[in-house]
Formats: sequence, structure tokens, C-alpha cells
Amino acid sequence: MDLNADLGESFGHWRLGDDEALLTIVTSANVACGFHAGDPDTMLRTCRLAAEHGVTVGAHVGYRDLAGFGRRFVDVAPATLTAEVLYQLGGLDACAKAAGTRIGYVKPHGALYNALVRHETQADAVVDAVRAYDPTLTVLGLPGAVWLKRADVAGLPVRFEAFADRAYTAAGGLVPRERPGAVLHDPAQIARRSVQLATEGTVTSIDGRTIRARVDSICVHGDNPNAVIIASSVRDALTAAGVKLKAFSLENRRLTA
Amino acid sequence: MDLNADLGESFGHWRLGDDEALLTIVTSANVACGFHAGDPDTMLRTCRLAAEHGVTVGAHVGYRDLAGFGRRFVDVAPATLTAEVLYQLGGLDACAKAAGTRIGYVKPHGALYNALVRHETQADAVVDAVRAYDPTLTVLGLPGAVWLKRADVAGLPVRFEAFADRAYTAAGGLVPRERPGAVLHDPAQIARRSVQLATEGTVTSIDGRTIRARVDSICVHGDNPNAVIIASSVRDALTAAGVKLKAFSLENRRLTA
Amino acid sequence: MDLNADLGESFGHWRLGDDEALLTIVTSANVACGFHAGDPDTMLRTCRLAAEHGVTVGAHVGYRDLAGFGRRFVDVAPATLTAEVLYQLGGLDACAKAAGTRIGYVKPHGALYNALVRHETQADAVVDAVRAYDPTLTVLGLPGAVWLKRADVAGLPVRFEAFADRAYTAAGGLVPRERPGAVLHDPAQIARRSVQLATEGTVTSIDGRTIRARVDSICVHGDNPNAVIIASSVRDALTAAGVKLKAFSLENRRLTA
Amino acid sequence: MDLNADLGESFGHWRLGDDEALLTIVTSANVACGFHAGDPDTMLRTCRLAAEHGVTVGAHVGYRDLAGFGRRFVDVAPATLTAEVLYQLGGLDACAKAAGTRIGYVKPHGALYNALVRHETQADAVVDAVRAYDPTLTVLGLPGAVWLKRADVAGLPVRFEAFADRAYTAAGGLVPRERPGAVLHDPAQIARRSVQLATEGTVTSIDGRTIRARVDSICVHGDNPNAVIIASSVRDALTAAGVKLKAFSLENRRLTA
Repeated sequence: MDLNADLGESFGHWRLGDDEALLTIVTSANVACGFHAGDPDTMLRTCRLAAEHGVTVGAHVGYRDLAGFGRRFVDVAPATLTAEVLYQLGGLDACAKAAGTRIGYVKPHGALYNALVRHETQADAVVDAVRAYDPTLTVLGLPGAVWLKRADVAGLPVRFEAFADRAYTAAGGLVPRERPGAVLHDPAQIARRSVQLATEGTVTSIDGRTIRARVDSICVHGDNPNAVIIASSVRDALTAAGVKLKAFSLENRRLTA
Repeated sequence: MDLNADLGESFGHWRLGDDEALLTIVTSANVACGFHAGDPDTMLRTCRLAAEHGVTVGAHVGYRDLAGFGRRFVDVAPATLTAEVLYQLGGLDACAKAAGTRIGYVKPHGALYNALVRHETQADAVVDAVRAYDPTLTVLGLPGAVWLKRADVAGLPVRFEAFADRAYTAAGGLVPRERPGAVLHDPAQIARRSVQLATEGTVTSIDGRTIRARVDSICVHGDNPNAVIIASSVRDALTAAGVKLKAFSLENRRLTA
Repeated sequence: MDLNADLGESFGHWRLGDDEALLTIVTSANVACGFHAGDPDTMLRTCRLAAEHGVTVGAHVGYRDLAGFGRRFVDVAPATLTAEVLYQLGGLDACAKAAGTRIGYVKPHGALYNALVRHETQADAVVDAVRAYDPTLTVLGLPGAVWLKRADVAGLPVRFEAFADRAYTAAGGLVPRERPGAVLHDPAQIARRSVQLATEGTVTSIDGRTIRARVDSICVHGDNPNAVIIASSVRDALTAAGVKLKAFSLENRRLTA
Repeated sequence: MDLNADLGESFGHWRLGDDEALLTIVTSANVACGFHAGDPDTMLRTCRLAAEHGVTVGAHVGYRDLAGFGRRFVDVAPATLTAEVLYQLGGLDACAKAAGTRIGYVKPHGALYNALVRHETQADAVVDAVRAYDPTLTVLGLPGAVWLKRADVAGLPVRFEAFADRAYTAAGGLVPRERPGAVLHDPAQIARRSVQLATEGTVTSIDGRTIRARVDSICVHGDNPNAVIIASSVRDALTAAGVKLKAFSLENRRLTA
């Protein structure tokens, strides 16, 4: 099982998240690429830390919207989105290369992540960018997302993630954030759900049903005050349950030292 | 002899320069990388046009200053500059790759170009970035610039350019733009000087002396109204004088289709 | 009758539109406020030219999206939008003041213009900003737009504009740009429609009906190659028809020299 | 005596400083205007908090450099700088007005603060902007700075600040930050120096001499972890010493509710 978290989200003088601590816990780092967060300095520093800890670097690509942290839908033209994702992939990969590693996968961020679940032209635009950049790059996302279906058709390796700290509907979707109970905060409960995901491939929905969940990676969130405590709890519980933690993309892609 | 020009300097809705015409004339295109000009859309489009015309793509790296078009010195920390150049190289190279080519060389833009003539820590910062990204990348600049000396010591291939439309001092430097006669406008005169540079390796200084000029590439400017006429005149005159036009970096770097 | 055009849309080194020519023709200038186009330099220069020619300065407020020229919908939170419009109003008004005038009205730009026709929370957000900044500022837009209804309820002076170069539906709406015949290009025809708008208060729809059009200002577009020719034709035709050209907001607002 | 601190330095999703706590301590708030830090949302929120606590809002104007937090010298043209400062003044004042107050003074930030000590053309550029915006606005800075001399000649009210947490040279200048002992960290010592500044108008230099210091306001820094503790200590010590704390600019400028 893989553990992923959003990292490298600082910008200039502004710091966000405890990257150094999280990089001792996770196996895959979704590193912001400068469009919604991250600047080249932060990207290079984060790649170096990731390389040091043997953590796989993933490109956390987003809309061009620093002021909105990539959390607002932008109705960008598909051709522009393809070029913007290409640029972000290349920019981060250059930092990764200088740090002695390479990017191993791609995961969209924020409003782009949500849009790609259903938005077909933006989905195709992102798939086009990844394939043009490197067709051996793995893409990571939510089971059922339209962009992962397109990626699969395009021949890109596809991996799925689950959220141990989010409530699921009976249909297997995420309960929207604004609903009560949508986000879990108890580290012990989140850890238990992670073990269930990893060992049984199921999650208990908000109305108590046991549902199947395809999961190659568990996402732990990096930007809340308890992020490190929760991530540690998840890692410890998985290890105690005999689950081996390993980056999902290591097999798929040759890392260039 | 190589002919280079600054291209891909549009941004969003704003257009600058006649890239399509110039790409039928030059052999090397200095493509803006999104920090002082250019956006991913423009970069990808410019790389595609360059690839179509067999023109080598160079990374025209600059300060992070869209509002100032990279023409203002920014006292950026060396480590930050290294990361910013890395990011620009990777971002443009991703666009080049998607267009079926790769970047072949690096040339700094505007205020960074001027700063690197003497600014030692910024010079080292840029050399570090190029070497970390790809030690086979050629660097292009003004003979005598401190950053080219550092690049040479670092083992990077170094090429020199000359400006057929700029007056030279007797010492071989450029006459500052604000002085009378610093910039030449007559296409015929610029073409004659190009031939002299290419065939004799000399330039006539503003006070009439013949001075040696090391030159692997002649720079023609792209952002003035006569840019296309001047570039054509230079190309025609060189061809008429029997000078073969060929990108300087083709021998140094394998282009991946 | 008032004639308005979008001006001050340059940014940094990038020029757009022939502001100097248009400012000799129109009576109201929609000046970009730095969020989708315009930089403080351009804003100050445009305000000075407008003041010189006795043209009223209007705040052409937009989404924070220079890369997209404000032409892409951004799902910005209402409280953020209120603050962003306030900031744009104050920023432009400071330039206007330094140029010896003040802003006289507000007109949204691009995707924001379109969104405010129906988007109720963004409409309220913009109305809140205008009212908080100066409740005597006139708002200018399309008859029927939800934001003008809210502005009216909030006590802001409301004025309506029409587009002489756009086809209208029988219901009085604009034919979407992508449909054939949506945009008119013939200066003579556009001029004739302007006279009809100004003297009869009607427009002929795309299917030949004569429909009522409330119109205090006719918008001429500034960013196409024929902009100046079309604007001149409109002005000449209106003058020949005995229509007095006068900024609509002069009566509503004291201009501070 | 006045107490000032830098506030409103958050940007988008990124938070910086404990504005709510500091606004219960200081009498003047230097609010970032969106060019080096701050976004309209943050500016409006900070102005509202300041108005609530009766704290005077000052415009903390900076270079256009979010990525560098305004801490890097930018060789911007004077005319551009004038326009940029005008825009920042207007943008912040609009937020202040919406919050029921107005800006009362201007203080440059970071690299601009340092540049204006000696850089004559940038100094004139900033003075031109303030005078054009509102000649009754007070300017705040370091005694001896060239821009304050120009402001005085231009008729702007001038006030001086001192830094209780910075070491002074015998000549009355600040010891550069990189020298040992340049920055003081002990709240008790900083509080004692504040009392000496306020009651005796002197400061003890790094080599033990007592030197005169013209001071209308004491600056406490907002962006270090002990900021609130230090600011409280200074305020408590001044109050205990019988020093009345009051914004310096209240007398100079009518605040519009």
C-alpha cells in the first residue's frame, strides 16, 4: 500500500504544512507545481527532501490561480490546459532531476481534481498533456473519474486512491465537505479505516454499509494542524497490521539518479 | 553560421512579434519560458512552429517579472535563481518534447542577460541550473561575459553571439542603447555587417576600427516593426556570400523526435 | 447619447488597441483595472488621456486572471469578489484623481460581464462593492441583467448599453458570438444601427423584427483592427443625425479637478 | 507615542502573523497593499479589524513582487513606481473606506523601504504618488532617509519611526541585519529601549553611546513567533512609564466613518 500527501505548498515567504515531518511518513509526495502553490525554490527543496527519504515525487498539477490556491473552477480552454499541465510537469521534473530523482506520477489538485471527475474536455486535455510528456507516467485519482477512464484508454498506467478521513456515500462517492460528518478528525478512527481499506479493500459508508473500494494509495491530508499526527497514526496502524508501505509508482518507472 | 531571434514573447491575449515569419528565416529560436514573457500555450505553439521549420529551440530564461518584461534587474537570491532557471528549462523542454523536439541551448533574456555579464553569484546560479538540468546543453551569450567563463569551467558547451544591428566600442563591447548611433536601423547596413561577421570574424567599431569578434550566431531582433525585413536581408546577404546557415547546437545535442 | 469603448487594455510591454485614437471619438472609457488587463502605468496614462479629451473614466472591473484576459469564468467566492472589485475601483480612482478626474461609472468585463447577467451571488458581491465604495457611482450594463436589478434596488444609478455591432434575438438578447451573423463588421451598417438605437430606441433583430432597446450608451469595440474606423463611422452618423454625444454619467457625479 | 506593526501580510490561502492579537496592541497598522503581500480579501478584513480596534490604517506600499515578498530590490522606472504606489494607495483606501475608516499614512515596505533611504529617483517617484493621491497623508520612515526629505519639501507631513528591537550604530543608523547583535530578541530589553526612546528620545548604540533619536512611532515586528509577546511587553512598559499611546496620524487627517 502507498501513502500519499500534498506537499510543497509553500509560496515565497509563506509557509504551509510540515513537509519535513510528512516526508518521513508518506511514500508518495504530491508536489505543487507553481500554478496553484509552490514556487521553484520550494519545489526544488521538496524534491531534495523527498529524494533523501526515498519518497516518490508526483506532480500535483492545478489551475493557474495562486490567489485562489487552485480551489476555484476556472473555465480554461482545453488546449491551454494541456499546455499548462505540460509546463507544470516539465518544471517539476526539472527540479526532481536536479534533486536526483524524477516525477513518478500525476495527480490533479483542488478544483481541477473535482472538475476532472466529470468534465470531459478538461479530462482529455490533461490526459493529452501527460501522454505527450511521458506515456509511462502513472495517473492517480478517484475510482470512477472520467479522466482516469480516458487515461486508461490512452494507455497510461492508472492507480486509485481512497481517503481514510472522508465519509463515503453508499454509492462509493465522497460525502460533500459541507455536510455534517463529511470529514473525520479522530486519528484512531482514520487509522482503523486505513487498515480496513488496505487489508479488506472496503470502506464503511456513512450509513453503515460495507462497500468495495479500489485503492492503491491512501491519501492523508497535509495542511491541517493534526496532519502529522494523523499520518503517523495511519502509518503505524498499517505497519502493525502487516501492510507493507511502498510507493505505487516505483515499479512503473525507472528512476534516474 | 547560426541566426537567432527572440520568439514566443506573446502572453495570453497579448501578441508580440511575427513569430511565423521569423521562423522561416532564423535557425535558432530563443523561446520565452513564462517568467518574463510567454505562457504555456504560446510556448507550445512556438515549439511546434519551430519544429515544423527545423529551427532549434533555445530556452530564453529571464527574471520572474511579467510586468517588467524581464527588463529590470531583480536582486534575486542565487539559490532561488537556480531553481527558477531549472523550472523554466523543464517547462519549455516539456513543450518542446510535445512538439517533437527538445531544447538545444540556453540564452538569458533582458536584465538577466546584462546582469550575467558581471554578476558572479547570479552567473554561478544560472550555470548550476543548466548543468543540473542537462550538462550537454549549449549556452549562448556575449564574449567576455562572466557567466560564459563559469559555464566553460563547468564543462558546458559555450557559443558566442554578435549583434549586427548594434554599434561596438573599440574594446569590443556594445555601445549602450541610449547613446546616439547605438542601434542600427538600415537593413542593408545590418546585412553587410552580418556578412563581415560571418566571413571575416570582425566588426567595424563605432570609431572605425576593425576588431575581432568571436561569433557562432548572429542575433536579429524580433520585436521591432522592421524585424522581418531586417532578418530577411541578413539571411539573403549571408546566403549570397556563400555562408551556410545552420543551427549551432545541432551537432551538440541529439534531438529526440 | 453616450459612446463607450474598452480602453487601457495594454499590460507591461504588451500593447493592445489604439487608445489615443479612440479617446478622440468616445465619450466614456471603460478602463481596465489591473486584474484582467491594465497595469498602473497604463491606467494612469489612459486616465490622463481621457481627462485631456474630456472623456469620462469608467472602471472596467474583471476577474483576477491576466493569463485569461478575464474571459474565463472563475468561481470566486462572493466575499472575495467584493473585495477584489473594491480594490480595482480604488486603484483606478487613484489614477483618475492623479490625472485630474475621477471614475464616473462601473462596467464589468468579459466573463464577469456575462456571469453577472444571471449569477445572483456574484451580482450581489459586485453591487456591494460599488455601494461601499461610492453609492453615487453609476453602473452600466445590459438591460435585464440580474446585477443591474440588484444595483437598482440598492439605490445605485443604472444605465443601459446596446451593441450596434452585435445581432439581437427577437427576445432582445444578444446572438451568441459563435453563431453565424452574430458579429457585424460593416462600418456603414453598424453606424446605421447606432442611429436607429439613438433616435428610435429600437434595434432590428436577426429575424427582421423591430424591437425596443433601452439604451443610454452605445458600446463600440476597441480591440479589433477596424475599431477606430467603426467608432468614427458611428460617431459621424450620430452627429449627422442630430444626436448629441455626451457622457451619461456627467450629470450624476461631480468631477473633482 | 505611536506603536506601528506590519499587518495584513497573508495572501490567499497562506496566513502570516497574528493580526487579531496585534491589533489589540498597536495604534497604527501598516497594511500590505497587494503588491508584495496582501490580497483584497485580506486587506478588507484587516481594515475592518483595525477600524474595530480604533487602529489607524497605513498603506504599506511595496515593489510588485509577491514571489519575493517585496524584499528584493527591483530597478523599476520612476514613472512606473509612481503609478504602482498610486494604485496601492487607492486600492487600500477603498478597502479602508468600506470598513468605515480611511488610510492615514504611508510607509514603504522591505526593499523599497531600504531603497528610498538613498535612491533619489525612486524617492521622488513615491513622493509624487502620495502627493497626487492626497497631500494631507503623513509619510512614515527612518530619520535621514532621502525620501522623507523630499516629502518634507513637497509639503507632506513627515513622521519618524525607531526600531526598539534593532541595534543602532554610533552614527544613528541601523546595524545591518547580518551582523551579530543586529536584532534583539529579549522582550524585556526591547521594552526598556522603547521606554528610553519614548521618554528620553535617545537610544543606546551598539558600542554603548547614548544618541538622539527623533521618534514619533516605535515599530514592532509582526512576523516572528514572539511578535505578540514583544509587542505586549513594549506596550505594557510604555504604559507603566506613563507614556500615552496614540496614533500619530489622527490629528493630521479627518477619518471618515
